[in-house]
Amino acid sequence: MENLLQITSSEATIRINGIKSLMQKIDLDAVLISDNANKFYVSGRVYNGYAYITANGNAIHFIRRPVELSGDNVEYIHKPENITEILRSKGISLPSSLGLELDLAPYSVVQRIAKIFPDTKIVNASGIMRQARSIKSEYEIELLKLSGIKHAQSYSQIRDIYTPNMTDLEFQVEIERISRLNGCLGQFRISGDSMEIYMGNVICGDNADNPSPYDFAMGGAGIHPSLPVGCNGTKIKPNMAIMVDVNGNYTGYTTDMSRVFSVGSLDELSIKAHKCSCHICQELSAMGKPGIEAKALYDKAIEIVTENELGHIFMGHRQKAGFIGHGVGIEINESPVIAPRSRDILAIGNVIALEPKFVIPGIGAVGIENTYIVTPNGMECITLAPEEIISLD
Amino acid sequence: MENLLQITSSEATIRINGIKSLMQKIDLDAVLISDNANKFYVSGRVYNGYAYITANGNAIHFIRRPVELSGDNVEYIHKPENITEILRSKGISLPSSLGLELDLAPYSVVQRIAKIFPDTKIVNASGIMRQARSIKSEYEIELLKLSGIKHAQSYSQIRDIYTPNMTDLEFQVEIERISRLNGCLGQFRISGDSMEIYMGNVICGDNADNPSPYDFAMGGAGIHPSLPVGCNGTKIKPNMAIMVDVNGNYTGYTTDMSRVFSVGSLDELSIKAHKCSCHICQELSAMGKPGIEAKALYDKAIEIVTENELGHIFMGHRQKAGFIGHGVGIEINESPVIAPRSRDILAIGNVIALEPKFVIPGIGAVGIENTYIVTPNGMECITLAPEEIISLD
Repeated sequence: MENLLQITSSEATIRINGIKSLMQKIDLDAVLISDNANKFYVSGRVYNGYAYITANGNAIHFIRRPVELSGDNVEYIHKPENITEILRSKGISLPSSLGLELDLAPYSVVQRIAKIFPDTKIVNASGIMRQARSIKSEYEIELLKLSGIKHAQSYSQIRDIYTPNMTDLEFQVEIERISRLNGCLGQFRISGDSMEIYMGNVICGDNADNPSPYDFAMGGAGIHPSLPVGCNGTKIKPNMAIMVDVNGNYTGYTTDMSRVFSVGSLDELSIKAHKCSCHICQELSAMGKPGIEAKALYDKAIEIVTENELGHIFMGHRQKAGFIGHGVGIEINESPVIAPRSRDILAIGNVIALEPKFVIPGIGAVGIENTYIVTPNGMECITLAPEEIISLD
Repeated sequence: MENLLQITSSEATIRINGIKSLMQKIDLDAVLISDNANKFYVSGRVYNGYAYITANGNAIHFIRRPVELSGDNVEYIHKPENITEILRSKGISLPSSLGLELDLAPYSVVQRIAKIFPDTKIVNASGIMRQARSIKSEYEIELLKLSGIKHAQSYSQIRDIYTPNMTDLEFQVEIERISRLNGCLGQFRISGDSMEIYMGNVICGDNADNPSPYDFAMGGAGIHPSLPVGCNGTKIKPNMAIMVDVNGNYTGYTTDMSRVFSVGSLDELSIKAHKCSCHICQELSAMGKPGIEAKALYDKAIEIVTENELGHIFMGHRQKAGFIGHGVGIEINESPVIAPRSRDILAIGNVIALEPKFVIPGIGAVGIENTYIVTPNGMECITLAPEEIISLD
């Protein structure tokens, strides 16, 4: 028998208490969680089933699979209808208001749950879960720091695996391999269904300017129209920029980091834009203290870019991304979002990736991406790898 | 300007006509598709937006990203509300009944769409799309055959990459690498959110008996509780069975294939069970003609297993899977499902993976998995690789 909880009970309590205090603000009696990332958050593991959290901070795990888990408040079910049967049999009254992940759970699933709680008001709890997860605990920050260290270790091996005449795809496959051998889990967890990616992207030359359907900062045509993003088989040649933005999920928590490589040297504009990206990261990470508005960071980046007359190539060229940074953690697209109309305000414990990037037609993408922890003194970088353009010669 | 359609217009017509005839059966005026796999089905590419299909077989693609696509019936939108504005401006009357993918689309998304079609009855079109996609066109079958050929090519290299004292994870990473270099797209497309996997599984020894939360035939503990499936770092040793079940997505269409490897020889029970699996695949593929009930195939497999007194280890040991086969195509979990209570009936053009597997405690998983096309004469195997247990010595 394996214990359900894969985090300490005190860590689970910290996380549940965070959710509880947000529930109380909107008078919610209970939430019923079905999203894998949210179940991993409250239990430290993924299981098939539902986590039921009450306003007094009690968590019951209703599990379909795997078999043979033990622990407090573990209840096995065959179907969601069993949830209310078990609650009633335990003398727990059904909630007046129940939060579900309405931004994530399919319509049919929500309808089925609503039917088994017929006298209960169903409320959207997606925002609460997003907000709770945006403030990382000390333990979560340790896991993110560990991912950052391993992520940087993998990137430090990239120079050694390049061989002349590689395509961007061949280069990416070797980076995937060393990342996996260093313990990268591979899986790229993204909230929602609209974004898809396999293990990250290596983008070089003009492929950086190919627009993609996904809301990532960088595009790329991909190698197939079923997954039109990232490397497209371009032969790596001198004077091209090669941007590496590969998965940092080593601990269930993902750091996000991009670095630029080149064979031979890049032109003046690329070097200027790359330096500008490093400068933006420095300025924003110093500014990024608790209480500052996320959009103020965005505005500052635009100010620096405009001063440098680089606006036409900032965050894309043919197609532009609408943000320069985003929360990371269990998933790659968490809160806060660093975007012009973001309402997020930075708080201690936020973990944010900043990725002010530039696309230079004919050359490729330049700029850096780092992951930072918001501390009282500003943002602390946890993806510590050399930031300059790295020569592959 | 790139053309939106990445399939010929006659191929698109074949697919749209399949959907249209299912729509007519339930009196549906239109469907609005947002799922990436379904958009890929109707257009041959993934884009961010919606495909709108009318009962007379007209398809309009409402696109948010990527920019710069051209083609008939391509309309750019910023938000879903633009869809009805554009329909009205083109003089197209809004539908009386509209099908949405209610089993897949989040509750909030469905609510928002329903609001912009205020006088329209919303109907669940998930089943229609599943059914349409379960009958593959000739072109789709060609793509599946091509995936099968490349899949088998990758598997033929597996023997050469094994080195003594590898762990299951190290072995898997090298299999991932050769698969990717052979053109595997990596992405494992699964309908719905509850199943997650990274590029497939290599499972050896007792890890085969570790139950997973996902509804896959084989479990495995995985290397992390955030993705508890597959290899777990077990050192490969003599007399263990090593089952390889790695991604066959080479064309946007996925073949599913498993093979067993061993160092040294396996015990009598494992060899008997493996032969039984091969025998089941032979019997079922001969039986699998158009018109036969999917559950009859399941029953036949159970009959053979029972005759051989292998029921206690069939489809798992501590935890059992409830099916022995499933449709494959753009996603790995399509219709029909070969399960005891399946209502599916086999039809020409179905593509089905059969995976009668056994878990032998102390040894590992044995058995084979192949992908088959349903033809008038039975099921034709398209994953043509040696089926016996392959020695790594």
